[in-house]
Amino acid sequence: MYDLVIIGSGPAGLSASIYAKRAGLNALTLEQNPMSGGQVLNTYEVDNYPGLPGINGFDLGMKFREHADKLGCEFMEAAVQEIRQALAAEQRLEAEKSEMKAASFSDDIERDLGFAVVTDQGEIKARTVLAATGATHAKLGIPGEEELTGMGVSYCATCDGAFFRGKVTAVVGGGDVAVEDAIFLARACEKVYLIHRRDELRAAAVLQKEVMSLPNVEILWDTVAKKIEGTDKVQALVLENVKTGESRLLTVDGVFVAVGIIPSGDILKGLVDQDERGYVLAGEDCMTSMSGVFAAGDIRKKKLRQVVTAVADGANAVTSVLEYLNSK
Amino acid sequence: MYDLVIIGSGPAGLSASIYAKRAGLNALTLEQNPMSGGQVLNTYEVDNYPGLPGINGFDLGMKFREHADKLGCEFMEAAVQEIRQALAAEQRLEAEKSEMKAASFSDDIERDLGFAVVTDQGEIKARTVLAATGATHAKLGIPGEEELTGMGVSYCATCDGAFFRGKVTAVVGGGDVAVEDAIFLARACEKVYLIHRRDELRAAAVLQKEVMSLPNVEILWDTVAKKIEGTDKVQALVLENVKTGESRLLTVDGVFVAVGIIPSGDILKGLVDQDERGYVLAGEDCMTSMSGVFAAGDIRKKKLRQVVTAVADGANAVTSVLEYLNSK
Repeated sequence: MYDLVIIGSGPAGLSASIYAKRAGLNALTLEQNPMSGGQVLNTYEVDNYPGLPGINGFDLGMKFREHADKLGCEFMEAAVQEIRQALAAEQRLEAEKSEMKAASFSDDIERDLGFAVVTDQGEIKARTVLAATGATHAKLGIPGEEELTGMGVSYCATCDGAFFRGKVTAVVGGGDVAVEDAIFLARACEKVYLIHRRDELRAAAVLQKEVMSLPNVEILWDTVAKKIEGTDKVQALVLENVKTGESRLLTVDGVFVAVGIIPSGDILKGLVDQDERGYVLAGEDCMTSMSGVFAAGDIRKKKLRQVVTAVADGANAVTSVLEYLNSK
Repeated sequence: MYDLVIIGSGPAGLSASIYAKRAGLNALTLEQNPMSGGQVLNTYEVDNYPGLPGINGFDLGMKFREHADKLGCEFMEAAVQEIRQALAAEQRLEAEKSEMKAASFSDDIERDLGFAVVTDQGEIKARTVLAATGATHAKLGIPGEEELTGMGVSYCATCDGAFFRGKVTAVVGGGDVAVEDAIFLARACEKVYLIHRRDELRAAAVLQKEVMSLPNVEILWDTVAKKIEGTDKVQALVLENVKTGESRLLTVDGVFVAVGIIPSGDILKGLVDQDERGYVLAGEDCMTSMSGVFAAGDIRKKKLRQVVTAVADGANAVTSVLEYLNSK
């Protein structure tokens, strides 16, 4: 039985692996993909991870993984299907009486309360589980988007905005994040278009007031993006007015897509408390509603999803795991 | 007037500088010492900052500063003496009537509520202030301690414990941190001595129970460390029993000093809420009790003080600063 099974090997999971190894824990990190790094792998350039200015996202992911490998952290490529809590002996007896599925729990688990992490490679026993499953940005699903990601198409103004100093950018969306992105970009960009499919924003009133006061932000109402044009880099956006049906071509250097984030939290459903969108409710200590289960990185409900906050979560989560194990 | 004045240039302050610059803020970072990096400068080896395994602390501090310099962040060497809140015009009038010291506030400040950061280089005006002033570890003040710091003497088991795998170490102290350090070290070390001046520990009961259950931890009661011996690396501890007056020589490879941390928060007194020890009360969002003043890094009341959590704080603090400025 492992002291800790970490699910996910993005920055949060890898940081947790490093901290767990250094703490002397018997930990295993499960990764769904053959490559570690998570979302950062697909990031063209990361310029806000202190100490490694302007590093390519792929290289940063590799460096994190090499760090963990150097310390001898254990990894396994496996897709998690379910996380089950082991039952206490008395609960188990009761469950068996009522012919519940508890009979499938292994005997080992029964002796020490813990968890069964069910994967496509078999069942793994763990005293504690850390969910570092991350999140993905919702896509527009239009031509040019995938091809030009990292070449002018971005899903994170905080991450990539600084690369568009003095340039013209467009933000697609109408919620808090989209409006915050437009305000953020307006500090550095010559001009920012905010493209929204409706005739009013969903963002908080104070943000709306702020964005509308900025001389270099123009809101294009009732407008959807139909196509992103460019070869090797973004050159223009094809827009359509949903009321008039009119099309127009907008010359831009960058497109920031802010139409939502999708947390990768399906395997946690029913195990820990999540918000209506699927984010795991956990504070800075990464403790979830279920004792022994922790959440770190983008899957956690928090304000700022960045590499720096993910690696901090990994460290904080292991500290909470140690406290939990010490109290057992 | 600056959008943001950052006080301190350790990992939290430098991360905030980087995030502020990339957000287009007009920010200034004040550093008391001629070298950036804070506590990390005096760390022999940092092996838990993901991506830079086994880096020398001095080099890590330099890398952080170079990153900020590369982005064009503004720095000033200055010692902060006081942070004063500017008064609203009406408050100022009232204050002048009552002959309070408000007359010393500059006219500019009066127009836009903000802060006056008073330094030995003059007064700096800021719309927001981020305290990233850090903390220092309390010292034993015994011969050999300073000379052997980084050569077997450490103030952070989480940071340095992994370097003592299979070795014999001693922890000096009796509080939660000392006992947690002993438990942490016991996972990797052959033997851990816990040296405590009294005949009972101050640590939480659950921690005491755990540490006493470990076969490779031995508690030396009523004992104080008088001297650390070694050339180039720690070789032994000279101990004295405070009840019998007896001396003994204990052969150890490492000494972990856990007799407290001293937050560097004097300049914040009266401005923001602090706990009884001087840590600034601020959550993960780094917001203090005073609107417009933020706290990041070791000065903040939090669980885990590490480079990773400091750099996360820097990013979170700038996010809160942006929200604050957007709402103005």
